Amino acid sequence: MTLPLRPELVGLEPYGAPQLEVRARLNVNENPYSPPPAVADAIATAVRKAAEGLNRYPDRDFTALRADLAKYLATESHVDFLEVRNIWAANGSNEVMLHLHQAFGGPGRTVLSFAPTYSMYPEYARDSLTEFVTLPRNEDFSLDIPAAVAAIAERKPTLVIVASPNNPTGTALPLDDVRQLADAAQAVPGGCVLVIDEAYGEFRRRGVPSAASILPEYPNLAISRTMSKAFALAGGRLGYLAAHEPVVDALRVVRLPYHLSAVTQATARAALAHSRVLQAQVDEIRAERDETVTWLQDQGYTVADTDANFALFGPFGDRVKVFEGLLERGVLIRVVGPEGWLRVSIGTPAEMALFRAALLEVTA
Amino acid sequence: MTLPLRPELVGLEPYGAPQLEVRARLNVNENPYSPPPAVADAIATAVRKAAEGLNRYPDRDFTALRADLAKYLATESHVDFLEVRNIWAANGSNEVMLHLHQAFGGPGRTVLSFAPTYSMYPEYARDSLTEFVTLPRNEDFSLDIPAAVAAIAERKPTLVIVASPNNPTGTALPLDDVRQLADAAQAVPGGCVLVIDEAYGEFRRRGVPSAASILPEYPNLAISRTMSKAFALAGGRLGYLAAHEPVVDALRVVRLPYHLSAVTQATARAALAHSRVLQAQVDEIRAERDETVTWLQDQGYTVADTDANFALFGPFGDRVKVFEGLLERGVLIRVVGPEGWLRVSIGTPAEMALFRAALLEVTA
Repeated sequence: MTLPLRPELVGLEPYGAPQLEVRARLNVNENPYSPPPAVADAIATAVRKAAEGLNRYPDRDFTALRADLAKYLATESHVDFLEVRNIWAANGSNEVMLHLHQAFGGPGRTVLSFAPTYSMYPEYARDSLTEFVTLPRNEDFSLDIPAAVAAIAERKPTLVIVASPNNPTGTALPLDDVRQLADAAQAVPGGCVLVIDEAYGEFRRRGVPSAASILPEYPNLAISRTMSKAFALAGGRLGYLAAHEPVVDALRVVRLPYHLSAVTQATARAALAHSRVLQAQVDEIRAERDETVTWLQDQGYTVADTDANFALFGPFGDRVKVFEGLLERGVLIRVVGPEGWLRVSIGTPAEMALFRAALLEVTA
Repeated sequence: MTLPLRPELVGLEPYGAPQLEVRARLNVNENPYSPPPAVADAIATAVRKAAEGLNRYPDRDFTALRADLAKYLATESHVDFLEVRNIWAANGSNEVMLHLHQAFGGPGRTVLSFAPTYSMYPEYARDSLTEFVTLPRNEDFSLDIPAAVAAIAERKPTLVIVASPNNPTGTALPLDDVRQLADAAQAVPGGCVLVIDEAYGEFRRRGVPSAASILPEYPNLAISRTMSKAFALAGGRLGYLAAHEPVVDALRVVRLPYHLSAVTQATARAALAHSRVLQAQVDEIRAERDETVTWLQDQGYTVADTDANFALFGPFGDRVKVFEGLLERGVLIRVVGPEGWLRVSIGTPAEMALFRAALLEVTA
């Protein structure tokens, strides 16, 4: 049989890191802490209530969830601007990104990003037939802003995407850099949306601001967030975005109707109602992250400055061998980033102890 | 500010029927029966268990859910063929359809369907930049098979989509028609996938087979289903598809990773475990449907032959006036289909009594 598979998809494997049962799963930047029983109970109670109405389609505009997200983000990022109309959400920030590409990308258009960065970005471009262009980051993984500004003027992308903190490097983007990129994007004649992907935003160090704080100044700025990490809700799939109303309105046109189930809406709202207890876990992860970084540096490794719940460290002559040695010892991390580097997600203290012991053995 | 909205999206409104609080919501073919308490309890229990692991990403291949869906469909459609590898699923059959278009459609490609039909089909084509072409149905809403076969040979679509039962007409496609379309699709040089959209499949009348029963014969055939209607799970958003393995493998490449949340997987599996009690509600709806059709005919209306949980009836000189008259009386139906027709979803006996009384008043 001949299947009319699109030619650019022939031979491709589905995206995804290994899902293995090991003692320490430190490969996909998950929050290592299960939702506390009170949160799990609240989710079950909310879903039980929603279940009574599951024969009906969900609220297509998920207004109550958007209100909760606006309130949370306003507090978290100190921005006195956000209303329901400024919030979008979808099944993971994956889908938020797809919506952005469907609305503002497409054939004949370009999305610009900065390598090394999140490995899904080229997939969003591929899925929407948008040209994907990257500029290299500086050696310390910060952005080369003059080069970025020049590239935006020259290439006229309709989308510029920067992860901050960046994955897999952990690098946060200073607000002044965001402003310069947003200004450059605003100067693109046909328009250009600057997306700051703050999936790991809650893990930023004290004093590092969210780009959301300057959202009021820039109508072409969009901040992407997720509940996967800080809310320990990777399994719940809730990504969201804050932007000015016209950006949100554009995403409403390309979303599939009823894309967010009533169960997803109920689950996310229950978790949002417990943001303070979940934030306590975030604080533990941040402390463990800083300790891990210090320990790695004490061992003589270079560690990229990180505001996320992971650390990129190296250099290794044969990083795959180190990865495999760790895996043999029940510690699953990730071979990602430039040659010679490895990325470890921050787990519980017990998991990080396993990681440290295994790394010492493997590199002995 | 200039936003780089794709030109073809300018001025478009998001898809969706009104979500109004009225006495009888008979406009979007929802199942009128809430999930029974036992089902709602099972969903809550399953989600409570899943909640404990929500900090982790969900099973990307949702293997357990696919196994349950395969088992259910094998029983429902009498097809001894289906394994996990033959099943795909997504957030509503909307998203299954998007995956089909992303894998097999795209610029320079054509999807063929048969009007009047489901109003989302052109949106999937638009979202994937696929050309959308329709052939007119016969006056009784059956397919003109010789014309369809000729059009497939001439236009060489990569996708042919037929809703069966068709929305908004209720028309089921005979197996012999499916075979002729599948043969014509197989003769397209670059390949062509025939998608039979059986969203309303469980409501078909006794003796009307599912196209799934001939799936073993046709490697280019795909059967789309949903849990929204028969499982009273419109709010849960679970659409699925049965096909030969290469078709499913193509969809795996274009899906966003972790597109089905652990909560969605748990909810769907809990509902599937109660398929027999939910099937009893389907039987009630089918009986009410047949009574509604008979009553409408007794009033002198023409009613399209329906195997679904709705009926298309007419003719009306001013259908919008009738629609509005019904709405004033708390009965929300749908202005859809060819000029002069109206569609009513089958509700509870009480809701249908309201509908009948209101229609008599409005047309008095």
